[in-house]
Amino acid sequence: MSRGEVGVVYIGKKPATSYVMATVLQINQGAKKVVLKARGRSISRAVDVAEILRLKYLQGLLRISDIRTGTEEIFDETGERRGISVIEIELERKT
Amino acid sequence: MSRGEVGVVYIGKKPATSYVMATVLQINQGAKKVVLKARGRSISRAVDVAEILRLKYLQGLLRISDIRTGTEEIFDETGERRGISVIEIELERKT
Repeated sequence: MSRGEVGVVYIGKKPATSYVMATVLQINQGAKKVVLKARGRSISRAVDVAEILRLKYLQGLLRISDIRTGTEEIFDETGERRGISVIEIELERKT
Repeated sequence: MSRGEVGVVYIGKKPATSYVMATVLQINQGAKKVVLKARGRSISRAVDVAEILRLKYLQGLLRISDIRTGTEEIFDETGERRGISVIEIELERKT
């Protein structure tokens, strides 16, 4: 990743630490912003990742610059169309 | 609730619809803002509640005016102190 780019980390069902490390890597590679994206039940984990980064791994170096929510349409296991909540948490390097 | 007050709805483990209805009630009683508060795994449900209100029950009447995250200290089942993520989603009546 080039310096100043915006990174994206998709939050799934792995332990929060996996996504914390992925974000630290992108920041260390020069990303100015990293957006954590999650859907459905992984939304809680996205907030965990942001908080762990802000308070522990990148304490003082990172701020949450924006949090957006939305709804996407998916087809579930039974083929039914339904809405699923999504979140995007934008993290910005302070320096 | 008096007109113009700020309401609070605590999101727990009930179905999202319960909290949707609680919020609609507060808005109908005159609240200008309602803050949805959730911790841990209920965070995903708080986003569901906000999205259902915004897109369905109070479509066009409500906007998400702020989303804040944080970490609170709790004592878990084993007596260990640990951090738990929290979210506050602020909903504002448009009119």
